[in-house]
Amino acid sequence: NSENSASTSVEDPLPSWNQGQTKSAITTYVEMVTTSDSPDFIPIKDRIATFDNDGNLWSEQPAYFQLFFAIDRVKTMAADHPEWATEQPFKAVLENDMTELAKQGEHGLLQLVMATHAGNTTEEFKADVQEWIKTAIHPTKKVTYDKLVYQPMLELLQYLRAHDFKTYVVSGGGVDFMRAFVMEIYGIPEEQIIGSRIKTSFEYNNGSPVIKRLPEIEFIDDKEGKPLNIQKIIGKKPVFASGNSDGDLQMMEWTASNEQESFMLYLHHTDEEREWAYDRESHIGKLDQGLDQAIRDGWTVIDMKNDWKVIYPFEK
Amino acid sequence: NSENSASTSVEDPLPSWNQGQTKSAITTYVEMVTTSDSPDFIPIKDRIATFDNDGNLWSEQPAYFQLFFAIDRVKTMAADHPEWATEQPFKAVLENDMTELAKQGEHGLLQLVMATHAGNTTEEFKADVQEWIKTAIHPTKKVTYDKLVYQPMLELLQYLRAHDFKTYVVSGGGVDFMRAFVMEIYGIPEEQIIGSRIKTSFEYNNGSPVIKRLPEIEFIDDKEGKPLNIQKIIGKKPVFASGNSDGDLQMMEWTASNEQESFMLYLHHTDEEREWAYDRESHIGKLDQGLDQAIRDGWTVIDMKNDWKVIYPFEK
Ligand SMILES: [Ca+2]
Ligand SMILES: [Ca+2]
Repeated sequence: NSENSASTSVEDPLPSWNQGQTKSAITTYVEMVTTSDSPDFIPIKDRIATFDNDGNLWSEQPAYFQLFFAIDRVKTMAADHPEWATEQPFKAVLENDMTELAKQGEHGLLQLVMATHAGNTTEEFKADVQEWIKTAIHPTKKVTYDKLVYQPMLELLQYLRAHDFKTYVVSGGGVDFMRAFVMEIYGIPEEQIIGSRIKTSFEYNNGSPVIKRLPEIEFIDDKEGKPLNIQKIIGKKPVFASGNSDGDLQMMEWTASNEQESFMLYLHHTDEEREWAYDRESHIGKLDQGLDQAIRDGWTVIDMKNDWKVIYPFEK
Repeated sequence: NSENSASTSVEDPLPSWNQGQTKSAITTYVEMVTTSDSPDFIPIKDRIATFDNDGNLWSEQPAYFQLFFAIDRVKTMAADHPEWATEQPFKAVLENDMTELAKQGEHGLLQLVMATHAGNTTEEFKADVQEWIKTAIHPTKKVTYDKLVYQPMLELLQYLRAHDFKTYVVSGGGVDFMRAFVMEIYGIPEEQIIGSRIKTSFEYNNGSPVIKRLPEIEFIDDKEGKPLNIQKIIGKKPVFASGNSDGDLQMMEWTASNEQESFMLYLHHTDEEREWAYDRESHIGKLDQGLDQAIRDGWTVIDMKNDWKVIYPFEK
């Protein structure tokens, strides 16, 4: 019986969320747009929900996890690249010299990404990422990276899907990097993952077709790239958008312009004890303009410290 | 009772297909890969089926229907473009001079497409196509273009979906052109339509975000572009591919290289009475290398004249 308070936690679709304005804003919206006689009812085909990934579905500190993958790959590949011992940015990586690595700037990062993300086939790359995600350990949390997903967001994804929303990842991260593990962790299939891409070519290897990964950026799925990619790939506006930084602002605005009732959700990192606290001045996941606009336009902002009972699944 | 022959046509999922090798190859494959204790069982998440559009789901003669759209749009827009009265290729279109239009070659066609497919927003373009598809009349068949879809292929799409395949359109045609009407005609949602694209930009119109269509090609979804786009957007190999020309050959090869049991289906236009007959020498939908490879590799080839009881839905 739903009025029996003893059973509340069993029936609550968002058990890791504390009761309060944020949680009730989400459930009120979902009930409103999925109740068939509601004036704001949204047909199932239009229930598109898009989620940023880094810092929104999993942590992103002290550096994007994909950068740790690149660093780990450089170390794995170093035996075949003796020249890296004296060549930046590889030398800095091999010597664990993060100060020097930071000095190499964006160009250095790009070199790292290209050396570790290109030159192989799509299938070889996928196998590399899958091996890494099962074994690599986060430098400060001391667990594998897949453990650092946000339990409340897993529940939110599941709750939306239970109401026939189609959940997408729309991330600045590499699309093929994410596809290697996202299905298992978030329950989102490959075809609902959108991200940044490098160029590829279709080739034959002993008569068998392969797709080779080329060392050149094709599309950066960030800022205005997010709505552009959503339009290119999904072909319709989301009704629900979730992110944590200024890089998600254009996706939020695009979603807010939907003629159907839409929901914009920002995650504010406020918990320096259990996770990290950062916003307007952060070098990663900067949330400044987005926070101002969320407040001005009445979008929902998650206060991580107060709205979330647990952060990671292993805390349950 | 399924053994009662009087009820056979009611239960047949492909009633517009004549009994024979082609039809039984399709149903044998689908039963084999969707029966849970079959050694060739394919999990639902991997049941990706990709269909070429022009000449495969609807007709493409005497010219691609999207070209007729461009021609009709030029006539509609001419009042605002007095300069077109003396400027090629627009002059040829306005004077219905198809010989002169053909002389303008690929560059002329590109000019037509850019003048009629760019410069507006994604929402304005969609409204233009939706108006056209409801009203424009095919020059020789004398019906609206949406009537010229292939009834047997509608049944095949439905049959695959009933067996939990996810059906995609993967076409050289413009993705936003197709998205304006494909859901209604084929039952395929916008996010499962892949095609050629022009560039777009994210802009603000009085503070509201819009996506503007720019007069520049971004991606041609043909030949090797098809498997490349499938990998970029779907992120996994199809198990079922269907097409009608050499432009589909790389998609077929990519599908044939799937480790899971896959099915490659070519449509051979052999019916000059009810539709059109063309293959190795055609200026549109040329099927030459593809036909050789289909025969060599044992792919299934539909003989339109003999395999299909009806071509268009209105013949039923
Ligand atoms: Ca983020
Ligand atoms: Ca075709």
